[in-house]
Amino acid sequence: MQFKTVFETKKRPIIIAGPCSAETEEQVLETARALAEQKIDLFRAGIWKPRTRPNAFEGKGTLGLKWLKKVKEETGLKVTTEVANTQHVFEALKHGVDVFWLGARTTVSPFSVQEVADALEGVDVPVLIKNPINPDLNLWLGAIERIYKAGITRIGVIHRGFSYHGDMKYRNAPRWQIPIELKRRFPKLQIICDNSHISGNRDLLEEVAKGRSI
Amino acid sequence: MQFKTVFETKKRPIIIAGPCSAETEEQVLETARALAEQKIDLFRAGIWKPRTRPNAFEGKGTLGLKWLKKVKEETGLKVTTEVANTQHVFEALKHGVDVFWLGARTTVSPFSVQEVADALEGVDVPVLIKNPINPDLNLWLGAIERIYKAGITRIGVIHRGFSYHGDMKYRNAPRWQIPIELKRRFPKLQIICDNSHISGNRDLLEEVAKGRSI
Amino acid sequence: MQFKTVFETKKRPIIIAGPCSAETEEQVLETARALAEQKIDLFRAGIWKPRTRPNAFEGKGTLGLKWLKKVKEETGLKVTTEVANTQHVFEALKHGVDVFWLGARTTVSPFSVQEVADALEGVDVPVLIKNPINPDLNLWLGAIERIYKAGITRIGVIHRGFSYHGDMKYRNAPRWQIPIELKRRFPKLQIICDNSHISGNRDLLEEVAKGRSI
Amino acid sequence: MQFKTVFETKKRPIIIAGPCSAETEEQVLETARALAEQKIDLFRAGIWKPRTRPNAFEGKGTLGLKWLKKVKEETGLKVTTEVANTQHVFEALKHGVDVFWLGARTTVSPFSVQEVADALEGVDVPVLIKNPINPDLNLWLGAIERIYKAGITRIGVIHRGFSYHGDMKYRNAPRWQIPIELKRRFPKLQIICDNSHISGNRDLLEEVAKGRSI
Repeated sequence: MQFKTVFETKKRPIIIAGPCSAETEEQVLETARALAEQKIDLFRAGIWKPRTRPNAFEGKGTLGLKWLKKVKEETGLKVTTEVANTQHVFEALKHGVDVFWLGARTTVSPFSVQEVADALEGVDVPVLIKNPINPDLNLWLGAIERIYKAGITRIGVIHRGFSYHGDMKYRNAPRWQIPIELKRRFPKLQIICDNSHISGNRDLLEEVAKGRSI
Repeated sequence: MQFKTVFETKKRPIIIAGPCSAETEEQVLETARALAEQKIDLFRAGIWKPRTRPNAFEGKGTLGLKWLKKVKEETGLKVTTEVANTQHVFEALKHGVDVFWLGARTTVSPFSVQEVADALEGVDVPVLIKNPINPDLNLWLGAIERIYKAGITRIGVIHRGFSYHGDMKYRNAPRWQIPIELKRRFPKLQIICDNSHISGNRDLLEEVAKGRSI
Repeated sequence: MQFKTVFETKKRPIIIAGPCSAETEEQVLETARALAEQKIDLFRAGIWKPRTRPNAFEGKGTLGLKWLKKVKEETGLKVTTEVANTQHVFEALKHGVDVFWLGARTTVSPFSVQEVADALEGVDVPVLIKNPINPDLNLWLGAIERIYKAGITRIGVIHRGFSYHGDMKYRNAPRWQIPIELKRRFPKLQIICDNSHISGNRDLLEEVAKGRSI
Repeated sequence: MQFKTVFETKKRPIIIAGPCSAETEEQVLETARALAEQKIDLFRAGIWKPRTRPNAFEGKGTLGLKWLKKVKEETGLKVTTEVANTQHVFEALKHGVDVFWLGARTTVSPFSVQEVADALEGVDVPVLIKNPINPDLNLWLGAIERIYKAGITRIGVIHRGFSYHGDMKYRNAPRWQIPIELKRRFPKLQIICDNSHISGNRDLLEEVAKGRSI
C-alpha cells in the first residue's frame, strides 16, 4: 500500500480538537472560533455517537452536519466526524465533511468497515482509522486494507489506546508495540497519537505524547 | 428485562454445533445429518463471515441459506446463523432461519447492534448475543437492551471469551467474573458457555465447561 | 412462464375488500369483522400510500401492519397490502402479510419493480400486479417477468383501468383489449377485474364486471 | 415555490445532448468531444436504464459515471444523468454529476420521487423533472413539490410528451395544455421542451419546437 499524507503541515504536534458531540449550534460555533484562534489542524465533532447503553444521547445527526458546514464557512477550519455505515458516509459527504474517521468500535467489525469502504468508493476523501478496541494488529491492518482497496489514498491512523480490564495508570492501554510495528511495516503511514484518549487525565498528556511509558 | 427461554430442553449440556462456514451443499448436509444423529440442540453455520483481513472467504451469502433450509427440511434440526446488518436479518428471515446470533465483533459496535435491533422489530425470533470482544460488561448489557427494546423476548447470551494480548493457556480469556455478574443481575437469562471457543484446544474443554479455571 | 393460482376458490366473483388506507385500529378491525361475515376472499388495506401531492396522509406504516396481524388472528381472513420498495417488502413479510400487491404507479417504474422483485427473492408469497397507469402491455408484461424471475410462482394481475385525459364515462379507461391480449398469451394467469376502480361509480359496477363496455 | 434558474444562458434553444446510454468509454468521450464543439448546454447519458422488459441492457452503473467524470475534465461540459433511488443519487453525487433528472416513469411514482428527494436533502444540485408518463398535471406538480421541499432551488421541468394508446403523428402526445398550465402557475419555472422525444421523427422537430401542433 502506498499512502499519501492526510496532514501536510510540518508543524508538530498535529492538533485535532473539538467537542465529543455536536450538541447545539452555539456550542459548536463558539468552540470552533476559539480553536481557530489556536490554529488547530482539524476540527472534530461527533454527529452519530456509538453509545454503550441505549437511551443515552446518540448524536444530533444531519442537523449537526449543518453546524459543521457553518464552522467551515466561518472559520475556514477543516472538519471531521465519525462514520460507521453507508448513511453516515452519504450524509457527511453531502454536507462537505473534509475528513472521515472510523471509531475503535467500528474498526473491530469487518462488516461495518467494508460497508464504509464500499460507500466511500468513488471519492478520494482522507480517512483516519482508530485502532480496534482490542489489541489486534491484524484487525487494524484489515481495516486499513479495506479502505485502501476502495481507492482511498490519504489514510492515517489514530492510536487511541486499547480496552483494558483491571486497574491501570491510563484510561486505555497504549501497548506501544502495536503502533510501532505498524509504523515499521508502513513508514509513510501517518500515525496520530491520541494522548488525550489514552491518558484520560491531563497530567499524563505529556508523558504519553513522548511515549515515555514504553 | 423479563427474558423468555431460548432453549426449552432440560437436558444439559446444550449443544450448538455445525461448520464455521457453510461452504458447499454437501458439507452442510452431511455435517447436519451426522449431528442430527447426535441429537444436538441447534445447528449452526456461518453464512456471512467477518474476516480480519479482506480477500479471505467471506461466506456464501444467500446461497448458503438455501442449504440451511434443506437442513431443516431433511433433519428437522433448528438452524442459526450470524447476522450483523439489515440485509443479513432480512435474508435470514426470508429463508426461515430459526435463531439469530450477534458475533463478538458486532456486539462491540452499538451502531451495528441498533441496526440489527431495528431490522428485527416486528418479529419475535430468538436471538443469541455473544460477549463483546473486549471485556466490557456494559457493552454486553447495552446490546442485550437494544435487542430487548426491539420486542425480542427470547434472548440468550454466549460466553465465548475475551480477546487477550499476550500468552495464555486459553485462546480467549474467560474472565468468569463478567458472565457471573451478568447472571447475578438477570438470573433468568440463559448463558451458554462456548467452551470450545474459549479453549481453542480440545484437552481443555471439560475444564472450561466446569468453570474450573475461575 | 408457468403460473400457479393465487386464489384457489372456485367461487365467483372473487372479492378483495377493505379500506383504502389503514387509519385506526378500530376502523381496520370493524371493517374486517363486517367483511369476514360476508366471506370475502382477501382483506386489503393500504399501509404506505403513494399520494399525488406531498403533505397528504401517507399511511400508517409499520403500526398499521400490527392491525393487519390482528385482523388475521381475529377473523382468519388473509390480508394484503401494497409494496413499492425493499423496506415495504421486509416490513410486510415480518408482520405476516399473506399477499403482496404492486400498484399502478409502481408497475410503471422498472427500477421499483426490480427492487421489489429482488427483495422478494427467497420467499414464495403470492403477488398481484396492477396494470401500469398508462396503457402499455409490454410494461405490464415486464413487471410480471421481473417478479416471476425472482422465484415467485403465484402471480395474479389486477385490471384497474388506465389513466385517461379528458371526459369519459368511467373513472379509468378499461381498454379491454389489453387484459384480453394478456389472457390470450397466458391463459393460466389469474386476471382480477377491479370494476370498482374502473367505474368510480357504483351504478357502473355490474356493467364493467360483465365487460359490457367492450 | 420560488425557483432559481437551472440554465443561466440567454441563448436559445437550450441544447441537452448525448447518448441514450453510456455504453463504452470511447462512445461517451467521442460523442462528448463532438458535442462540445457544437457548444451544447448540457451533456446527458443514461447510467441506469429503466427497461420495459428485463434482460435488456440496464446500463453500466458506476463504471459509466467514471466516463462522465472524464467528459467533464476533458471537455468542460456539465453532465447529467437519470436517478431513481437513493443509491443512484449517492453514486452520482460522489462522481460529481452536475445536474440530476427524474424520468417520466419515476415522476409517476410518489414513493420513488420522495426517496430521491430525501436522498438529495442537504445538497443544492439542479434537478430536471420530466413529465409523468400519463397526462396528470397534479402528479407532475407533486413531484416538483417533493423535490422543492428537500431544499432544491434550481428546478426545471422537461416536457417529453405523454404515453398515448393508438395511432398518432407523434411518438408521444404533447398535450400542450399541461405544460402551458404549469407555466401559467409558475412563470419562473424553466420548462424545456424535449421536441426530439415527443416527435420520434426528425422531420417533426421544428414543428414541435415551435409548438405549432397546439
